[in-house]
Formats: sequence, C-alpha cells, structure tokens
Amino acid sequence: MKAAYYQGKKTFEVKETEISSPGEGEVQINVAYCGICGTDLHIYHGSMDTRVQPPEKIIGHEMSGKIAAVGPGVDGFSVDDPVVVRPLDNRGEKASDRGYSHICENLKFIGIDSPGAFQTVWNVPAFTLHKLPPSIDLKLAALTEPLAVACHDIRMGKLKAGEHAVVLGGGPIGMLVALAAKDAGAKVLLSEINPHRLSIASELGIDTVNPQEAELLQTVKDRTGGIGADIVFEVSGSPFVAKTMTELPAIRGRIVVVAIYPNPVEIDLFKFFWRELKLIGARVYEPEDYEKAIQLISSGSLPFEKLITKVESLDNISAAFAELDGNPEAMKVLIDCQS
Amino acid sequence: MKAAYYQGKKTFEVKETEISSPGEGEVQINVAYCGICGTDLHIYHGSMDTRVQPPEKIIGHEMSGKIAAVGPGVDGFSVDDPVVVRPLDNRGEKASDRGYSHICENLKFIGIDSPGAFQTVWNVPAFTLHKLPPSIDLKLAALTEPLAVACHDIRMGKLKAGEHAVVLGGGPIGMLVALAAKDAGAKVLLSEINPHRLSIASELGIDTVNPQEAELLQTVKDRTGGIGADIVFEVSGSPFVAKTMTELPAIRGRIVVVAIYPNPVEIDLFKFFWRELKLIGARVYEPEDYEKAIQLISSGSLPFEKLITKVESLDNISAAFAELDGNPEAMKVLIDCQS
Repeated sequence: MKAAYYQGKKTFEVKETEISSPGEGEVQINVAYCGICGTDLHIYHGSMDTRVQPPEKIIGHEMSGKIAAVGPGVDGFSVDDPVVVRPLDNRGEKASDRGYSHICENLKFIGIDSPGAFQTVWNVPAFTLHKLPPSIDLKLAALTEPLAVACHDIRMGKLKAGEHAVVLGGGPIGMLVALAAKDAGAKVLLSEINPHRLSIASELGIDTVNPQEAELLQTVKDRTGGIGADIVFEVSGSPFVAKTMTELPAIRGRIVVVAIYPNPVEIDLFKFFWRELKLIGARVYEPEDYEKAIQLISSGSLPFEKLITKVESLDNISAAFAELDGNPEAMKVLIDCQS
Repeated sequence: MKAAYYQGKKTFEVKETEISSPGEGEVQINVAYCGICGTDLHIYHGSMDTRVQPPEKIIGHEMSGKIAAVGPGVDGFSVDDPVVVRPLDNRGEKASDRGYSHICENLKFIGIDSPGAFQTVWNVPAFTLHKLPPSIDLKLAALTEPLAVACHDIRMGKLKAGEHAVVLGGGPIGMLVALAAKDAGAKVLLSEINPHRLSIASELGIDTVNPQEAELLQTVKDRTGGIGADIVFEVSGSPFVAKTMTELPAIRGRIVVVAIYPNPVEIDLFKFFWRELKLIGARVYEPEDYEKAIQLISSGSLPFEKLITKVESLDNISAAFAELDGNPEAMKVLIDCQS
C-alpha cells in the first residue's frame, strides 16, 4: 500500500508501507477518492502543527471507498461495500456532553487527531461508516463530508421551503449550502466577490450577487419585497461580512455562522435586539446529516460534478496542494487513492 | 391636572395644565405611579433628544393607574378599573413586519415618541391597556413594564424548569430576570460587581457571584457539574462581558442579549461554532408577557417590593432623576403621580 505523509512545512512524502490488519471493531477500506478540505490547507500551512504533530502524519477526511476487510467484532459490513467515513471519534464522550456526541469535549477528528484517508488502504472504527448505494459515483461520494456540513447548517438553521436564504461566500461549503438550501425549497441568493466563483455558481443554477458591484442589502430587499432574508448563512469568514451580516435578516430572522472565526470580531448586537434576530452556531454533522448528504448525491438531482475542479493521483498530492493553495477559483480537488 | 415637561439638558418643569378629553378609541387614566426607566435616564442625559424633541415633552412609561374616563368607541373598560399601559403603538404596522407587532418597523413607543405617564391624567389608546386585579398594590403594579421585559426574555430564551441560568448584571432588569427565572423553576446565579446590588440580590433570595472576587467560569462549572449554563442572560451592557459571556454556556447553550449595545462589540464567534451556541435577541414584550408579569406581581410570591428604592412626588421629579443618575445602588425609583 501507499500513503501520503505530511512532514510539516507544506511538504508531503508519498511512500510504500505495510498493510496492517483491521483491529477489533475496525474495518479496512480501499480508499477511492479523498478531497482536499480547507482544514487540510490550514494543516499544509503549518497552522495546526501543534495538534497534527508532523512529521509522518497522514491527513484527509473527505473520502469515499470500498470495504477491503472486516475486523473482528464487526457486523453488518461486507467486503466491497461502498462506504464513506464520518470522521468523528466520540469514544471519549462524557455525561457533561449531554448526548451531543458530534461536538463532545473530547472529540477526536479522524484525519487530524488520528490517521486520515490520503492513503490507499485505511483502517477505521466501524461506527464511523455510512453505506453508499451500489450505483453511486465514488468521485461524487467524496463530497459527502462537506455536503453533510451544509446539511447540518441547514438543519440547525431550521430552513423551511419557500424561505429566502442568503449565503455569504461562494467557496465549496458556500456552494454546497446554496445547493442544499435550494433542494430544501428555499429561494437562495449567493453573495461572492470572485468573478470565477460567481460564474461557477451561475452554472450550478444559483442566483448570485457581487456586493462590490450591487448594493447587497438593496438586492436582498428587492428579492423579498422589502422584508429581508429569513435566514443568512455566513460562510465567508470575513470580519467585514460578520459586522454587516446583521443588516440582511428580516424581523426574527436567523443567521447561521458556518465560517470558523479564530478571533473575536465586531458584531452589531443592536440589530439582534432591534429585530429579535437569532445567531446559530453549527459545527460538523450528525449521522442524519450524512444520510441526507448521501441521499442528495445518489439522487442525481443536483449538479455536484461541477464542483470537482480536478482529480489528482496520490503521487501528485504535493502538486495538488500547491496548486490549490491560495487559488480562490478552485472548488474541490480530489486525490485518487486507488493506486 | 399636572404634568412634568422634559425641557432638555437634565431639566423637568412641573406645570398645571388643562385636562383634555379622551379621543375616539382612547381611555383617560389617573396615573398612580410611574417608575424611572434606564431609557428615561438616557433621555435625561440628552442622548435621545433627536427622537424626543424637547422642550415641553412628557416622558415615562413604567406606570400603573385607574381609569378616569372612557372615550367614544371603547368597550370593555369602566371608570376606576386598575390598569397598566403596554406602551407600544403599532398602528403603523405593515405586512413586511410579518405579524411581529411589538417590534414592527414603524413602532412608536408611548412615553418616548408620544406623551408619557409623568402626569396626573393621561389619555392613551385603549388597545394598550391590561386590566389589573382589584387587589393589586399599584406601587408594585408600576413594575409590570420592566417585569414584562424580563418575562419576554425568558420566553424568547425558552427557559425550562430545572435549567441553570446565569444573569450577567444586577440592575433592575437583571434582578427581574433573575426573579422571573427562579419563578420559572431555573437554578439562577446572578453575576454583579457592585456590593450593594449584590446584597439586594441576596435579600431577594438570588444566588450571587462577584466576578472580581471569584472566577465566574469556575463558579458556573462548580454549580453545573462542569457542564456550563443552559442559558445566559446578558444584561450588563459591558463590552468586556459581551466578549467573555460565550465562556459560560454548556454545549448547545443559549445566550439572550437583553442589554442594548449601541455600537458593535467584539464577540467570540468561535465559541458559537465549537459548542453550537445560540444567541437570541429580545426586545420589549408581547401581550402575553404583560399578562405573565401581572400574574407574577398579583400572586405575591416574589419580593418585588424590595426593588422599590424610593417613591417621590411628581413635584420632585427633577430631584428624583438627579439622585438616580449615576447611582448604581438604586433600583426602582417611582414617581407618585396622584397629586
């Protein structure tokens, strides 16, 4: 087998290594594809070295694959089953987590805190698996993890059919939130400043606005009969956007904060008071979000294939990261882990 | 009759004036008591002169009284009925307000945007009235308006019996939130730095912490078995508190922002992401909050009388404002409008 080892300092080394058998409660997967996540780029930049502890670390978590072997004590899975891994290891869960396993205090994220999927063969706990329909395209199935993030955001925001949704930021997660919101019956407007991203969104059938060319608030008002948005998804991570996002919701509107803000930012609390707004934090996903994402991908009703910018071989992982780094025009780059 | 006219620049003038008859749909009230609200102090400071437009303006809205006369077209009210006014004039409500009358875009606040209760006789639209039980103490009934704010905050925060609530800030509204939360069955901790306010809270039977003397986060953890607060009410209005309040909630905990922040402040959005917190904006009250407040006051189960620091005559309104101004130890000062 082969694995890509993150060595720190924007470096991967792809090496042959021994296959280890799946342990008790584990399943061995032949990884098909694994996408490069924004978090993987943070790791690549060295921003998470304290947590990842290079060298010789295998990352990657946006994957699809097929079962290669089933370890002792595992029921319900067979060799060749197509699967995705929900990369949350909640075995350290405590009563104080109140049953919220997916964000428990001692959560380990597989592919950050333990070995990930940028390898041909991967052993994972069986409880992390979701089965895929046999007919699914394994390239598209590698979008399950980021799409599950989007499904979780939508569920946490209690999005209802017919509502006006505004998505701030058109990176891969913003696009997926917009697509999933449209699928849920919302009237979606995506705000993004990069012209290439705007054209991808248009190809995906998403209404867009460039807030550097049109007045965003007025555009939202025009679309909503002056009422404002029922729900706003903040996916940009921009402190300027965080400070102004509160302009957009209607009375009793909701704002779901999807982007990760490492530092405190200025927020207009007055708007929360004045219009009785809600701000909703959302993190990763729960099993039902994975099932929803799998159902959306396998239904073929949404043009997810347009989000796959490129597929690179595992041998070329360093080049793939280098090319993606700082390129806002790329959407999803997949690593083909089949050879 | 007599009325206190706000003249701007921290000045009131109390003058004799003609009684005008209640108009179509109006009721005339003999005002009994009217409390001085934080907003009235803002007006006194001149901070709201653009809106209030002195001179010759009558303010005041935390009142109780009895009906003196009933205008044409008013049913269901009789002379001598004890009443309070819910000082929200929503007659400019539009479809775009989505039925949220109490925070509609064109809302007029009676006592700010139109004449208030610092007068002996007051004409108000009948739709603003709530009847009081005949046995109620009209001094305590003057607390209905601020208590309705607290009841609204608790309802918007969906507080449940048995939950751990932390109230940040022990001014009159903080005390009322704490009392109403206790009445709703919550385990309440009030955080406040002023020793006098802390002793009032203790007299009211509220558990307290001085965050300058004990570590607030640790105190909350100790009380909750390390879990954190189910709900936090931010009533202090302090940017420092706003920045740190996100430390206190449990996983999926809620923060109700009660204080009014005129300017954007730094908020730790990362905590909203990490623990999937919610921030809930709440403003004024709806009719059911008034009914709840009246029921709480008339039941006699809570020691509201301890919140009344002083009762001053209408003639002494200037002295009452001057004494209350900048005095964090005072709770409610009532103006007796009966002579």
